Order: sequence, then C-alpha cells, then structure tokens
Amino acid sequence: MAVSISDIEGARRLIRGSVNATPILPDRMLSTQIGATADLKAECLQRGGSFKIRGALNKISSLTADERERGVIAASAGNHAQGVALAASLNGIKSTIILPEFAPLTKIIATKNFGGEVILKGSTFDEAVAYSRELQAENGLTYVHAFDDERIIAGQGTIGLEIAEDRPETTVIVVPIGGGGIISGIAIAAKATLKNVRIIGVQAENVSAVKLSLAEGHPVEFTDHRPTIADGIAVKRPGELTLPIIRELVDEVVEVSEEEIARGIYHCVQNARVVVEGAGAAGVAALLSGKIKVKPSDSVCAVLCGGNIDANLLARILEQVMVRDGRYIIFKVLVLDRPGMLAGVLDRVAETGANVIEVYHQRAIWLAPLGRVGIEMILEVRDQEHARSVQGHLEGAGYHVEAEGQRDWDE
Amino acid sequence: MAVSISDIEGARRLIRGSVNATPILPDRMLSTQIGATADLKAECLQRGGSFKIRGALNKISSLTADERERGVIAASAGNHAQGVALAASLNGIKSTIILPEFAPLTKIIATKNFGGEVILKGSTFDEAVAYSRELQAENGLTYVHAFDDERIIAGQGTIGLEIAEDRPETTVIVVPIGGGGIISGIAIAAKATLKNVRIIGVQAENVSAVKLSLAEGHPVEFTDHRPTIADGIAVKRPGELTLPIIRELVDEVVEVSEEEIARGIYHCVQNARVVVEGAGAAGVAALLSGKIKVKPSDSVCAVLCGGNIDANLLARILEQVMVRDGRYIIFKVLVLDRPGMLAGVLDRVAETGANVIEVYHQRAIWLAPLGRVGIEMILEVRDQEHARSVQGHLEGAGYHVEAEGQRDWDE
Repeated sequence: MAVSISDIEGARRLIRGSVNATPILPDRMLSTQIGATADLKAECLQRGGSFKIRGALNKISSLTADERERGVIAASAGNHAQGVALAASLNGIKSTIILPEFAPLTKIIATKNFGGEVILKGSTFDEAVAYSRELQAENGLTYVHAFDDERIIAGQGTIGLEIAEDRPETTVIVVPIGGGGIISGIAIAAKATLKNVRIIGVQAENVSAVKLSLAEGHPVEFTDHRPTIADGIAVKRPGELTLPIIRELVDEVVEVSEEEIARGIYHCVQNARVVVEGAGAAGVAALLSGKIKVKPSDSVCAVLCGGNIDANLLARILEQVMVRDGRYIIFKVLVLDRPGMLAGVLDRVAETGANVIEVYHQRAIWLAPLGRVGIEMILEVRDQEHARSVQGHLEGAGYHVEAEGQRDWDE
Repeated sequence: MAVSISDIEGARRLIRGSVNATPILPDRMLSTQIGATADLKAECLQRGGSFKIRGALNKISSLTADERERGVIAASAGNHAQGVALAASLNGIKSTIILPEFAPLTKIIATKNFGGEVILKGSTFDEAVAYSRELQAENGLTYVHAFDDERIIAGQGTIGLEIAEDRPETTVIVVPIGGGGIISGIAIAAKATLKNVRIIGVQAENVSAVKLSLAEGHPVEFTDHRPTIADGIAVKRPGELTLPIIRELVDEVVEVSEEEIARGIYHCVQNARVVVEGAGAAGVAALLSGKIKVKPSDSVCAVLCGGNIDANLLARILEQVMVRDGRYIIFKVLVLDRPGMLAGVLDRVAETGANVIEVYHQRAIWLAPLGRVGIEMILEVRDQEHARSVQGHLEGAGYHVEAEGQRDWDE
C-alpha cells in the first residue's frame, strides 16, 4: 500500500497545532432513527470549512527549501483551493490556484482571503486542470493534487486517528467519496488502530464513479454524470493511488440520491445544529435512508467532511425538504367575484392556525365559471394532519377545495 | 452572593458524564472583523440544543428521595422545557411541563420526546406559569425555575469553568441575558478563575429588561416589549437572585436590534458553520455591530447559548440578510405589449449571469402607458457591483430600468 499508518502518524505530528482536532458530536436523533449509536465527526468545523487543510498542510510542510522558494500550484473548483491556499500561507509559501471561470464568487473570495493567487481559466474543471499543469511545468512549481498523492492521503488519515482515540468503541465509519483521498486515509488509520471496524463509502448517485472503476479494476471516467448538490464529491474518476486502497480496505460503497442528500443537510442543521455542504451530508444521508445496515451494538461515526455551502442554497434546501414533508401546502378555492369573498376565505384559514405564505387571486387561469374567481393559497402548516384539518375546516364552511399535489418535476 | 464558586464546582461533579463539555470553536472571520481573537463556546451543540440541561440536571440531581418520588414541574415556552424534561428522565423522575397553548409544535414534540408530560395551558406565558404554580401546590411537586434558583445558576456556571480551562487567556466573555441565569453562573465562575476578565451581557433591545431593573435597583417588569426573534431571552423581568449578581459581576450590558441578531445568526451559519437560535446569536450580533469595545490583545469568547430554531425561520432569516446585502434585487422594465418582448428582456438578463428568482408580467398595476406592459423581476446577483452591471447591461440594450429600493417596512 502506498501509505502506511506511520505516514499518518508522521502527518499528525507535522500538522498538529495548525489544524483543529474537530469535535465528535453525539447525534441522539440519528441514533434513534438507525437503531445504533451514531456520532458525527464535525470536519465542517475545520479551518477553511473542510478536511482539505490536513492533506495540503502535510504535503506543503514537507517540501524542500528549493521547492518552497518556487511555490505550489493546484486546480480546484472547491474546498481544495482553500485548503492549499491556507496551508501555503501558514508555511509562508506562495500558492497559485486555478479555478474554472464559472467558480462561485464566494469560493474565489475565500481562496484569496487565505492568501492564494487566484487565476480563473477554462470553462470546465478539466480545462482548469490542464492549464494548471502547463503553468506548473513552465514555472517549476510543486503540484498539489486534490487526492492522488501519498502525503495528501496521509494528512486526511489523521481524521481516522482522532476517531480511534476519541471513540475507540467505533465499529462503523461512514465517509463520503469523491476522488477517494479522505476515505483512503481514514481507512488506513482506522483499520490499523480499531478492531473489526467497517469502512463504508458514500457517493452521490449522480456521480458514482467508484463502483464503475471497482468493477473495471482500474480508474475509469464516469461519463453518465448529472448535476449534484454534493459538488465536493462530484469527481468523475477516482485516483490511481486511492482506488487500490478503496478496493482493499473499504467494505462497501453506497450511493445516495439528491433528495436523500438534501434530507441529510436538513437533519444536520435542524437536529445536530451543524452546517454541512452536500458532500458533507452524504454519510448522514446514507444512514437516514437505511442504505447502511447496522446492528444495535454498532457504534457508527459519520464524517461530515465539509461545511462550505452558500446560505442561499442552504435556505432553498431547507425549504424544499419542508415542502416534501408537507409543511407547505397549495389549496385552490373557487369563489364568487364579489367584494369580501377573498377576505372570507382568509378568515376561515386564520381560524385554523395555518400561516399564509402566498395568495393569488386569479381571473385569467383555469376554466373558472364566469362570475367566479380562483383563489390559490400557499399555506404553511404544522404537519400533514394539520393540512387535512385546514382543508376540512374550509370544506365545512362551504368551500370547494382542491389540494394541489406537490410532486417532483420531470427533468 | 447566593452562589459560590464551590457550588459551581459541585455542580460540575454532579452533572459530568450526562452533559457535553461543548467545544470552543475559533472564529477567524469574527476575529478579523473585531480586531481581536474571537472564540465561540458552542452550547448550541449541548444535549437538548441549549445550556438549559446543565442547571436543570444540577437541580434535579440534588432532590431528596421524597421529592424525587413526587416529581418536578416547570413552565416554559422554550429551551427550559426540554432541559427539565431531559434532566428528569436521566434521573428517572416524572416531570410535568406547562407550555402556553400557542407553543410551537416542534417544542411540544421535543419536550415529549425527552420524556416530559406536557400540559398546554393559558394564552400567555404568564398564565402558564400561574397554572404551574397551582399544580405544584396541589401535588407537592418541586418547582424548577428557569433562572431564579441557586442550583440552576450553579449548573449554568459550569460553562464558565469550561471556558476558563480550555481558554485561560480569555479576557472578555459575552453572554446573552434573558432572566440572567446563565450570565450569573458564568460571571461567578469566570471571575473566580480568570484574572481581569470582563463579562458583557447582551439583551435584545425589544425586551431589554435588565438595564431598566439595574437603574431602578430591583427587578421591575419591562412593559414596553416588542416581538423578537431572540425568544429565548425575551424575559420581561430579571430574577431576584440574578439581578444582584449581574449588578456586582457584569461589567456592561449592551442591546442588539432584530437586524443585528439576524446578522449574527447568518454569521454563525455561513462562517462558523454552527446553527444558533436568535438568543444564541445575540453575543455575536453585539460583537459584529461594534457595540462591544475590544483591544487587539483581547481574547473574546462569545457564548452561543442555544440552537433550537425552526428550519423555516432559519431559511427566512438567511434570505432576509441576503436581501439586505443586495444579493437579491428588484427591477421593473416597461416593454411593448407584443409577443417576444418578455423573452427579449430575459435573454439580456441571462447574458449577465444574474439568476431569475421571480418574474411578473403585469398589465394591471402601475400607470403603464396603454400598449405597454410592466415586467417586474426579482433577480439573484453576486453583489452590489454585479447588480449595477446587470442594470447597465439592460439599459445599454435600450430598456428603461427602475430599480426598486429594498427598504424596511414601517411597523
């Protein structure tokens, strides 16, 4: 194997003091739902908002004086950019980070704030990578790969040491997989220090490259990819170094849907009170959906690998999960086109305690009988039972109510 | 003083093992903004989602066999309900919790899940309290007050011991004040263990009872209260025990507006990646708004006292802060009433990279010239500069654009 437990122990000595030993949080609601003890390794509370600083710092701290002088380069659309920029700054080294032109402004700003020199290049991530390789060769820079590097893997493995020390009773560790760096490091560390521990990898089903590569026996590109909110693990091809480690040490790889990832994020925010990005929620998503089989005696640790999510996207995800759970409902009611009719309907709604979110008073749509208008209401309710009681109350007052089903849109 | 450092040390021995020693998280962005070192004591990651379990467990663990047999009672509209129910369950004691009839379903469910017997009574919190006192007298139950009790104060004080041990360099501790239980306990613990530490209390300006009571010299009811998103500290009258402790040990009390509290929540979620409720964000809000003077040599610890916020409210708060920061803008454009005109405007918008949130194609409102229609667009942009460039692009294409100012509503 390319990386040993002593490499990981060495990484830990090197990065200690510059990296947070992140807390492991008991999650009692998740424990109840899966029927086993569940903890969360909150790497979303790491410096830079994800685990990436660990590997980057281990890599950069071990450069020669000559390499330090020339500086490092990396290509990334996400957390790795921030990890490398921060690790380089902590070492007083210059870093150049190539981001694709469409990179979100928040990530560009964060990378600059950590001291990285940002260059926007290419309309795809692959083009950004190609350009970074050119620049590296031209300027004799050290390339810091996001996952396919022994020192990167060893740095991420320090998470496994922390889990083994803080929770020696752990029997299952659930880790998101993109390129495979974090799960490789954790698997090596955990299997060397914990007895009978199972390592479960989780991929977004929209970019599930690992299963295909395992089946083929070598890293292959996953071409059938679709967009995912877990952008941190949307890697189309696992690494040459990481795939053999995954094959040997990872017990199972499961896949989660976009809806399951959204529910994972919702769970972390609402119940565990930590903010995770899509990739960070993948492990919790897999547990909540029942895709990982556990025994009552199991002690499960899910690694929340990152928390860099734009507040805007987070707000939309929370709302969408509430819509799915029936916290928002749409009712249509037909009334006479006379003054006071809208007020009458809303008075009845008010009596139920439902909260009006939006109201449309519509003449132009539906084939409403002449002399009538349609009222469409989006209401916030406590739960599905409350929704039914609101509908019953309106019907009891003589209104014909049409409840519009909330369903997924076809893509 | 009613509570001593040895009471707090005793509380710690009693509750250790049942209560999380919550992590203290470095907050580098807050540090940069205030020009001093800033840490967050993440009590929102406590069992039950707030610090309340500490005091409740200290109180309940010290009951006599006879008192345990009869059980405890409390009235609460919030976190105290969950803290008492959980503390009682951990002791195998029956708890009765009186909640006002309007209590949010989520809090009712959480209290029941922790094993409390919930009774909904009264249309105001004061009516719930009155009823709880009746029931207590009738059934010989032990009353667990939310803050005005020596053992409750001592329990909350264990937070201060943890801060002093984990961050002995702390020079300023910022604590939200409702009834004054948590700040009293922390002040006693911190002033006994840290040299030259300042304790700063923070109230919501909409329910700022402490300043008035300090001026009057005894607890008085704050009658001029308005609604606040910091419901956890919306206490109209500080305690008989807590007010003298606050007067003696708290160096300053500041007040924060609703907008500042919302920004505090946003900061914690987006930058520190922890979820806090309104009360929990009050300390960060006061720091971000510059209301607490700090020196570069200061080491500031803000106590995030709770994280029980409904996802729905959280989503709205995040969105509102983004609106204030110019991430959402409203543009009105007048076009000819002809097929293809709306598509043309939206094509120009698309060229700018702005994201369409809502579009209204309106004939009926504004005094639009006949033969024209108004298009109102709500757009998501990266920042104010991007907003200006979107407007400039539309104007360059020949449209007259009216940017609607986002302003606060008068109440």
